[in-house]
Amino acid sequence: MANASKKVTIVGSIALDSVETPFGRKEDILGGSASYAALSASFFAPVNLISVVGKDFPKRYLNLYKKNNIDITGVEVKPGKTFRWKAHYNYNLNSAETLDTQLGVFQSFLKPEIPKNVSRADNLLLANIDPVLQEWVLDKVKPTGIVAMDTMNHWIANRKKELMKLLKKVDLFLVNEGEARQISGEENLLNAASAIQAKGPKMLVIKKGEHGALFFHEGLLLMVPAYLLEKLHDPTGAGDTFAGAMIGYLSQFSKVTERELRKSLVYASILASFTVEKFSVKRLTEITREDIEYRYNQFEKLTEF
Amino acid sequence: MANASKKVTIVGSIALDSVETPFGRKEDILGGSASYAALSASFFAPVNLISVVGKDFPKRYLNLYKKNNIDITGVEVKPGKTFRWKAHYNYNLNSAETLDTQLGVFQSFLKPEIPKNVSRADNLLLANIDPVLQEWVLDKVKPTGIVAMDTMNHWIANRKKELMKLLKKVDLFLVNEGEARQISGEENLLNAASAIQAKGPKMLVIKKGEHGALFFHEGLLLMVPAYLLEKLHDPTGAGDTFAGAMIGYLSQFSKVTERELRKSLVYASILASFTVEKFSVKRLTEITREDIEYRYNQFEKLTEF
Repeated sequence: MANASKKVTIVGSIALDSVETPFGRKEDILGGSASYAALSASFFAPVNLISVVGKDFPKRYLNLYKKNNIDITGVEVKPGKTFRWKAHYNYNLNSAETLDTQLGVFQSFLKPEIPKNVSRADNLLLANIDPVLQEWVLDKVKPTGIVAMDTMNHWIANRKKELMKLLKKVDLFLVNEGEARQISGEENLLNAASAIQAKGPKMLVIKKGEHGALFFHEGLLLMVPAYLLEKLHDPTGAGDTFAGAMIGYLSQFSKVTERELRKSLVYASILASFTVEKFSVKRLTEITREDIEYRYNQFEKLTEF
Repeated sequence: MANASKKVTIVGSIALDSVETPFGRKEDILGGSASYAALSASFFAPVNLISVVGKDFPKRYLNLYKKNNIDITGVEVKPGKTFRWKAHYNYNLNSAETLDTQLGVFQSFLKPEIPKNVSRADNLLLANIDPVLQEWVLDKVKPTGIVAMDTMNHWIANRKKELMKLLKKVDLFLVNEGEARQISGEENLLNAASAIQAKGPKMLVIKKGEHGALFFHEGLLLMVPAYLLEKLHDPTGAGDTFAGAMIGYLSQFSKVTERELRKSLVYASILASFTVEKFSVKRLTEITREDIEYRYNQFEKLTEF
């Protein structure tokens, strides 16, 4: 991290999740796209976090960010309740069924102040949150670094116009398979990718969960498998972790080459593989850079032919 | 093919398929595990085919085998009807719904004669067919080369005992994800693999269709993505093609190293990617070794990081 040449600014949700999977049930655990993305990115570069929590948000979680190289000057503590998400996963952990969503303080958090130490030269990750908020931050920061953006089915269905407008302004867009099909109306992923790239982002990642990810830069550039695990307890946050690791990894370099882009996908896949091993952000707070490098080396061996 | 050091013996089904996919409907087209596997293997090594057809089997299909380096001395033409399979694929082509199966001449084809030019030193592929027939051929040939075996959910459900007995005698076993879970009773693929390997085969391939394949040799050795296609018209035979290419590729070498094993998986994935582009074995009869090498080079670029 000492040789990181850029910081990463991340805007997204901070949530208290209640999650049930076949491996257990947890109440009010730390979640939200920004939590996963920031902790993941922080392995590679310092992070400026922009988000909001309610007065009910545990102090220990704020301390957790700080301990992990994440600047929370941009995290407002507002009267009201922290965003809450309640979900259930079926046996094979393939899809979350959302049982309840309470936006809480996010309802009125559409025009946040940007912390003074956010630099235009930093990379910016618009983690999964309302595209209206994502665009506000983008327009305020006016970044000269890489702008990456994630989203989810909910916003594609309910903020399509805002999302498509925003797409023209981002360099790297990350979606999962289903979202790629939803946005483009194309079943085939190569066709879906072309259709999405035609709307703006030069770089596109299609995340396929346990089946890895595809990276498009002009055409298809890289197919990355997912790191195979024996124990997978909670898939929540895997995609956010992926996005955070990718932009974090790239922030180590003042100029990004194709080689670094390829490697960023592998690190993203690896960080996501840690996240799903335990509930919440638990694994991201346990592992070291050495654990990551060990898995990277394994990954090389497991994909070489 | 000139430098192939071994031939491949393949036993399996020859069928006339009637298939409907969202891209069309075809009646009585050439199919069967042995057809796909033999044509695929024939790109790398000469093939001895052991199978059976009825008097109704079109001569042009027998000629097709011969034209492609496949010795059909072991293909009996018997009174009665050729094996017929009728199936329908849903929109995303993920799973075939079998509408009808007519075993025909296969009903009494459990103890075939082995052609005299089958050598013990050749590699042997027990392509998907009744394990009783697979074991007969294995016991008659007594191969000293590599023994590979494929199967399907039907035999796992209805010939479990025979199949498990046979597993002890094979070097390389190929199954798809669902079959791996069905045999082992394990949902997690790493656990499923360990459970299956404990039953005999040192080498195991778990095929994941459009998501690639996993190769286990002792532990997990290689993760191979599938070659991504814009047009996928009929997935029938992809797994058989995969198995044929793998054993065919390995037959080029008198001694197989880990490097060759790794490369065989990539060739297998590539040959399968051709098969699914058109109905029946059509693409396997159109492509050249150069087309295969072109896709192999693309595959290298698309997986390098």
